[in-house]
Amino acid sequence: MTHPTRGLDEVVHQRHRLGILTIAAEARRVDFGYLRESLELTGGNLSRHISVLAEAGMVEVEKGYEGKRPRTWVRITPAGRKALAAEMAALGVLVRRHGSTTPARAPAPRPVQT
Amino acid sequence: MTHPTRGLDEVVHQRHRLGILTIAAEARRVDFGYLRESLELTGGNLSRHISVLAEAGMVEVEKGYEGKRPRTWVRITPAGRKALAAEMAALGVLVRRHGSTTPARAPAPRPVQT
Repeated sequence: MTHPTRGLDEVVHQRHRLGILTIAAEARRVDFGYLRESLELTGGNLSRHISVLAEAGMVEVEKGYEGKRPRTWVRITPAGRKALAAEMAALGVLVRRHGSTTPARAPAPRPVQT
Repeated sequence: MTHPTRGLDEVVHQRHRLGILTIAAEARRVDFGYLRESLELTGGNLSRHISVLAEAGMVEVEKGYEGKRPRTWVRITPAGRKALAAEMAALGVLVRRHGSTTPARAPAPRPVQT
């Protein structure tokens, strides 16, 4: 009776946070400006989503300098990697389930039962 | 520079609505009570999410009787199928991208650069 979407955690599933985590998972740490551009978010919006992830222990924020430029980096934590892996596993189930019950391309109109 | 999460539509991506659409996509129409149990939602919460999808033209609600029992069914529309297919395509990209950049199972601790 349970459905794969029950395995999704809102903290991770929200699309911008999913974007932050997937990008952060690909590198040791990721620059705030790079995240903002990749996800096409405002700085304020990105900050809010990073805070939600940081409060959940999924990312850490690091401030420093690159030359004389102040920089903010985001680093995914082991807990963040684990949560992202669980989300991806649930999404994988959902995508495969969808693929097996629907046509491979544009869905054809179904015969109408009357 | 664009990221697969930019292709996600909040109307479809929200996890309960994703659940409603994926279940509805598997049948001609789906019973309200079945959706409620499968997704472990309260009736009120399920109703709200169905309303959001109905306002977006992605599902239609049908009321009637099965014997003497009043019933509510939810039916996915062609627009709903199209939106769900787009969501699944974006999620598929995300899942494959994640799979190709991370270990297949539990992520190993990364060497710390200092």
